[in-house]
Amino acid sequence: MAYSEFRALNEESLVEYIKATPALASKLGNGGDGDDLGDLKIKEVGDGNLNFVYIVVGSRGSLVIKQALPYVRCIGESWPMTKERAYFEATALKEEFHWCPAHVPEIYHFDRTMSLIGMRYLEPPHIILRKGLIAGTEYPLLAQHMSDFMSRTLFFTSLLYRSTTEHKRAIAEFCSNVEMCRLTEQVVFSDPYKISQFNRWTTPYLDADAEAVREDNDLKLEIAELKAKFCERAQALLHGDLHTGSVMVTSDSTQVIDPEFAFYGPMGFDIGAFLANLILAFFAQNGHSNGEDDRKEFKQYISQTIEDTWNLFEKKFVALWDEHKDGSGEAYLPGIYNNPEVLQLAQKKYMVDLFHDSLGFGAAKMIRRIVGVAHVEDFESISDPSKRAACEKKALDFAKLLLKNRRSFVRIGGVVTAMQQLEK
Amino acid sequence: MAYSEFRALNEESLVEYIKATPALASKLGNGGDGDDLGDLKIKEVGDGNLNFVYIVVGSRGSLVIKQALPYVRCIGESWPMTKERAYFEATALKEEFHWCPAHVPEIYHFDRTMSLIGMRYLEPPHIILRKGLIAGTEYPLLAQHMSDFMSRTLFFTSLLYRSTTEHKRAIAEFCSNVEMCRLTEQVVFSDPYKISQFNRWTTPYLDADAEAVREDNDLKLEIAELKAKFCERAQALLHGDLHTGSVMVTSDSTQVIDPEFAFYGPMGFDIGAFLANLILAFFAQNGHSNGEDDRKEFKQYISQTIEDTWNLFEKKFVALWDEHKDGSGEAYLPGIYNNPEVLQLAQKKYMVDLFHDSLGFGAAKMIRRIVGVAHVEDFESISDPSKRAACEKKALDFAKLLLKNRRSFVRIGGVVTAMQQLEK
Ligand SMILES: Nc1ncnc2c1ncn2[C@@H]1O[C@H](COP(=O)(O)OP(=O)(O)O)[C@@H](O)[C@H]1O
Ligand SMILES: Nc1ncnc2c1ncn2[C@@H]1O[C@H](COP(=O)(O)OP(=O)(O)O)[C@@H](O)[C@H]1O
Ligand SMILES: [Mg+2]
Ligand SMILES: [Mg+2]
Ligand SMILES: [Mg+2]
Ligand SMILES: [Mg+2]
Ligand SMILES: [Mg+2]
Repeated sequence: MAYSEFRALNEESLVEYIKATPALASKLGNGGDGDDLGDLKIKEVGDGNLNFVYIVVGSRGSLVIKQALPYVRCIGESWPMTKERAYFEATALKEEFHWCPAHVPEIYHFDRTMSLIGMRYLEPPHIILRKGLIAGTEYPLLAQHMSDFMSRTLFFTSLLYRSTTEHKRAIAEFCSNVEMCRLTEQVVFSDPYKISQFNRWTTPYLDADAEAVREDNDLKLEIAELKAKFCERAQALLHGDLHTGSVMVTSDSTQVIDPEFAFYGPMGFDIGAFLANLILAFFAQNGHSNGEDDRKEFKQYISQTIEDTWNLFEKKFVALWDEHKDGSGEAYLPGIYNNPEVLQLAQKKYMVDLFHDSLGFGAAKMIRRIVGVAHVEDFESISDPSKRAACEKKALDFAKLLLKNRRSFVRIGGVVTAMQQLEK
Repeated sequence: MAYSEFRALNEESLVEYIKATPALASKLGNGGDGDDLGDLKIKEVGDGNLNFVYIVVGSRGSLVIKQALPYVRCIGESWPMTKERAYFEATALKEEFHWCPAHVPEIYHFDRTMSLIGMRYLEPPHIILRKGLIAGTEYPLLAQHMSDFMSRTLFFTSLLYRSTTEHKRAIAEFCSNVEMCRLTEQVVFSDPYKISQFNRWTTPYLDADAEAVREDNDLKLEIAELKAKFCERAQALLHGDLHTGSVMVTSDSTQVIDPEFAFYGPMGFDIGAFLANLILAFFAQNGHSNGEDDRKEFKQYISQTIEDTWNLFEKKFVALWDEHKDGSGEAYLPGIYNNPEVLQLAQKKYMVDLFHDSLGFGAAKMIRRIVGVAHVEDFESISDPSKRAACEKKALDFAKLLLKNRRSFVRIGGVVTAMQQLEK
């Protein structure tokens, strides 16, 4: 059975939907004929801002159902948003799973009419990385895994691996996810730099800082350059929302979810998003320290993870490039980049540019989380506003420094050192 | 009547086609019913490499018919090429005509099945600009008109004027013109830098120079950066082939034709193409000078036209930006770029970047015309090979200098001075 029209499901109607959908039923019961699906346990757990997420557990298995509604969940029908985003999420998830199955949940089912995705349930102890970092939990494999995910998804969807024909076809398809891109344009690249009813910050502590962002011509020039790259440069398939709330972890598993903002954009936007959210987590630690735990060691862990993530990313990305240098990628043809010297020079230039892009986009992502509409739990969970504001101010100052001076950094180590110095 | 299948037309079958097509017949005879179309004069004049072009003159009017065949005209069926290029040519012509009707021939008719365009006949004394420049003819309004064409078509199809939604829709459409983009990638950004059966140059004079291009690591790094921009950066709708063979002129009219390579790319590619072809014309003048005319004055005219084209382009482009700064363009929102100081800084940064892009792409276009597959009549018409090679060598040296050092130029005047010095 297929639904011919969109219908928002709930815990009850979802049972019927699952029973009527063999690709889902077969994951939960014995035969997929629905007769042993009487005792399904269904729980809505969506803690994100946009969609509904149900955990479904049956006698023989489990899965997660995610449904997009034609509006923003946390606001309601007054903020409409295309439910077609589920199509781009499903398409991106499949592509990411194809290139990096170790770090992406498998998709079992996608129903475009219903804007509904069925995928692997990332069972406990998987938790959202952001929550783990707030709790002060170390994930020793995080940098290793995230550098895997980013290097593979970005490399294999770029012109370093693909032909122009494949690339342009894919770009054209994701051009239709424009509503999600527009949302990012607004909340990341525009609102923080102007008066907007959606902006908020820890008032009154950061009033002057928020105003300073809106009055800073240098920031405005830098953000314009980044916004143009975001809108115009189709370098690779991006996740598009790669913050620590889109990653689920255990001590030995790292899983990336929620690519509904996926589109072809500049690679640095994904890398920067992830690094920026680690940096926010770093600056939030003083707000989570207490008599028992000063979080000093944990700050060291985050610093190291930032450094490792970039360094491992760079190493793996270049290794993929070397491995596929005689392949079908059309950016650097073997007949031209045919000697080790020129290839190395080209790779170095590429990686330095990507590093600066990542720092720039990362800085933009930090700024918007402090003076824009959507804040992060890392800071929000610090209940004392003056303490919270002190953390946020350091993060904001660091982000401004990074956005303006990113080109003066040559290694991630220098960035981490600057971050630690500012924090002291 | 509409043809249900593609058919390559000739002088005879074209008459039947026109009689059966009111939009064409009405331009040529009295009533469009075909009964006064007995004495049509039809002449094939295609001197380009790719397509068939017919001039059609009737009792009351005239028009031009351009038909794309599914292969490259000057090579034959052994080099297939999508005839869908006619669709993108027609679509781009209409868009360009919309924004700049003074410098684009009106389209009367487009038939996608037949890959056939009917448009205004640019009657004599219109000639191809390249031929005029070879003959030493000055066109005093050329810089004025071309800066009009480029500033208007590029500005109005960019995010300075358009919303992201309109922009992404248009990008997606032109992604399908990928075969033409690939051809450019190959002949402009790849072949000249490697061994390729298609490359040729004035041998033996330029043998060492052609080899030097293939061995120059700095050039290879620069060309990689430009190629990435060409493939990835959808800044505006480009003509895509804006050399002096795509412009028809009289002393008071300038008309841009032949945008079959149109796509969303970096603006500098169009501007650079036009400037580069003026520079090639400049360096070719010594090959055309003779006892009667040393072409000194004409070289001065070309120099001035290069300078005026960029300076007028910049002035007009910024004026359009100022005029529409509170409009629907989403790149620089008025709420952010709300004071004259920051807007001016932003414009300055934008124009400097565009200037450097234009010089880089222009240099790439020059190089490929000297050591790549397709040469220009400016040099080809110099029959003495040693004389021709001397001209080409200067142009090539200048192009290499420009490609490597473009960022050190701040004004077009400096570029022209460097060009004149090298020529001495
Ligand atoms: N595959 C999954 N396995 C387990 N939990 C999941 C899964 N997908 C989502 N969740 C839970 O649902 C929450 C919201 O999912 P998410 O995809 O981020 O939705 P949104 O787009 O609304 O942010 C996540 O924070 C996570 O707690
Ligand atoms: N509208 C026109 N009016 C007059 N002559 C034209 C017109 N369009 C093309 N031509 C002539 O036909 C030639 C080839 O046209 P063009 O569009 O450049 O074809 P191609 O794509 O094959 O290069 C031009 O160089 C010009 O001489
Ligand atoms: Mg079963
Ligand atoms: Mg989420
Ligand atoms: Mg989401
Ligand atoms: Mg032509
Ligand atoms: Mg042509």
